[in-house]
Amino acid sequence: MNREHSDTIRPIRFHQGELQLLDQRRLPGENLWQRYRDAPAVAAAIRDMVVRGAPAIGITAGFGVVLACQRAIGQDDWRASIAADIETLRAARPTAVNLFWALDRMQALVDASPSAEAAVAATQVEAEWMLESDIAGNRRLGALGARLIEPGQGVLTHCNTGSLATGGYGTALGVIRAAWDAGRIEEVFADETRPWLQGSRLTAWELVHDGIPVQVLCEGAAASLLRSGRVGWVIVGADRIAANGDTANKIGTYGLALLARAHGVRFMVAAPVATIDFEMPDGTGIPIEQRGEDEVLALAGQRVAAEGARGYNPAFDVTPAELIDAIVTERGVVEAPTAERLAALREPTAPETLASAH
Amino acid sequence: MNREHSDTIRPIRFHQGELQLLDQRRLPGENLWQRYRDAPAVAAAIRDMVVRGAPAIGITAGFGVVLACQRAIGQDDWRASIAADIETLRAARPTAVNLFWALDRMQALVDASPSAEAAVAATQVEAEWMLESDIAGNRRLGALGARLIEPGQGVLTHCNTGSLATGGYGTALGVIRAAWDAGRIEEVFADETRPWLQGSRLTAWELVHDGIPVQVLCEGAAASLLRSGRVGWVIVGADRIAANGDTANKIGTYGLALLARAHGVRFMVAAPVATIDFEMPDGTGIPIEQRGEDEVLALAGQRVAAEGARGYNPAFDVTPAELIDAIVTERGVVEAPTAERLAALREPTAPETLASAH
Repeated sequence: MNREHSDTIRPIRFHQGELQLLDQRRLPGENLWQRYRDAPAVAAAIRDMVVRGAPAIGITAGFGVVLACQRAIGQDDWRASIAADIETLRAARPTAVNLFWALDRMQALVDASPSAEAAVAATQVEAEWMLESDIAGNRRLGALGARLIEPGQGVLTHCNTGSLATGGYGTALGVIRAAWDAGRIEEVFADETRPWLQGSRLTAWELVHDGIPVQVLCEGAAASLLRSGRVGWVIVGADRIAANGDTANKIGTYGLALLARAHGVRFMVAAPVATIDFEMPDGTGIPIEQRGEDEVLALAGQRVAAEGARGYNPAFDVTPAELIDAIVTERGVVEAPTAERLAALREPTAPETLASAH
Repeated sequence: MNREHSDTIRPIRFHQGELQLLDQRRLPGENLWQRYRDAPAVAAAIRDMVVRGAPAIGITAGFGVVLACQRAIGQDDWRASIAADIETLRAARPTAVNLFWALDRMQALVDASPSAEAAVAATQVEAEWMLESDIAGNRRLGALGARLIEPGQGVLTHCNTGSLATGGYGTALGVIRAAWDAGRIEEVFADETRPWLQGSRLTAWELVHDGIPVQVLCEGAAASLLRSGRVGWVIVGADRIAANGDTANKIGTYGLALLARAHGVRFMVAAPVATIDFEMPDGTGIPIEQRGEDEVLALAGQRVAAEGARGYNPAFDVTPAELIDAIVTERGVVEAPTAERLAALREPTAPETLASAH
């Protein structure tokens, strides 16, 4: 098997003042690029999950601000126009902190700009930097995470944390790409990840696309798979990491962490430092998005559950830090995360490994 | 809310030499009754999941033998004809022990019959007894299980264990029906139960049909639901219980049991004594059916996962007895099950509760 060219997908493009997003609702059946020229449409794209994944949401919102600045050119109160668009983007989804991180950076650049034209230039440079540095960071965190994996076993991942969830390469899937290329992984299992099936639709597509064999399973099959001994690490991404390491991620992650611990399987969270919310002391304060009941009650647009049944559909859950063996970022690896160890990541010069086990 | 008339569904009928099954692949969209006049077609119906659920499979196979006896009338080697049909039925699905239990009883009746006509009469009486006594047994185990539930919390169930999975009333869902009628349950949560969605399609339909409010969730949402404190008991059925209490049930059950234990939620298995395989010392020997990859890779007949992705699709898993707080049968409740305690259920006169906690 070719283990060298496992990174060929990029879901976000900005060209001639237009944002283009690979529509993730249509994959894998169709490669459809949506085009955007104003920020409210970008906010709708985030809300409707044309694009999803915490890092990709942050980058997309960044380009959304570029569009907001473009639209403000020639307006008397151009600052108010941009501010209104930023508020619209901010309200798109509540859990992923990267969205707020990106918008705060953009707002600061707008504040420092003398004109809308200058704001366009400044924010576009910043958004393109976010995109490029996200990819570069993912390559680094992928390499750092891969080193933790002892060869000879498989890995299990959840949701989609790949090129499609980021600027490119991926977080948890970046670790898996790097570890696969290095021959450290025997087989890759991917939860299908109901209700949106990001694992089945997106992760499987990415892995097949890049030549990495993958087996898809229903979430219910994870416990007996972990018991079988075929999996050495569960590797997931994050939508928001609290200062103490508690991690909000796609619904089902917390259960996987408990099952991993029960079977002696290690549990890794891979995410850029921008996903850490140092202002949030622990996971209890992270807002958990409740999405529409129809996402559970219907399938591919067809009602499945009997009329009259209700749906219970939290989009995320919180995994306590004590269930996490390692948080892997582009600035280094934090094993057995605590607030003190994570705080070291605020410094760009943090050493690669902040705990001594490896 | 009406809490008194929660039992109106019967999925198996036998009338004028014809077996009729409510097609569970079509529910809840369509109430379609399939009709059968020979045993191989009944075996196909079991394999293709027109009917599913361990007790319902056993009863259906029983009527399948009646059809086999009918077809053997007038044949020179009528015993060989029936034996061949019984073998076909036996091969339909491997995990649920009720199938083999029913066929063994039927074979004994055929062996004792002097003619095919006599075998028809004997097996029909037996199959009708199986159906009626299953319903009666479920009412009793439902009442026994309901007594274990302290009022004031919700319950979570998995797959479908209701009228559709049995002769009627249900096992785990029988407990829930009885406990609901007795005002012991605040709310009912049902896992959608991928890949076949028996929870979303069948359990929700039964509960709505019988006036019991239900909230459907994806399996991945169970861990945070259990953490929320809204659920006091997880209640499931069984496809085969080993002599020591290890329980094979729908994929996902074992994970739920681990999650329940981690959150101090109690875990109940409800099943007729016929589901206990006293010849099987523990769960390691129970054959686990691996079903087709397409059940995971496709949805409603449409391929979802990228071409090239594989599927991992065990239909059942095994929950160790030590994770089970109570096994509830029509002959009594066994708390903290062990081989010794379960063995008492072989006696029809077993006391209602075999452990002293209640």
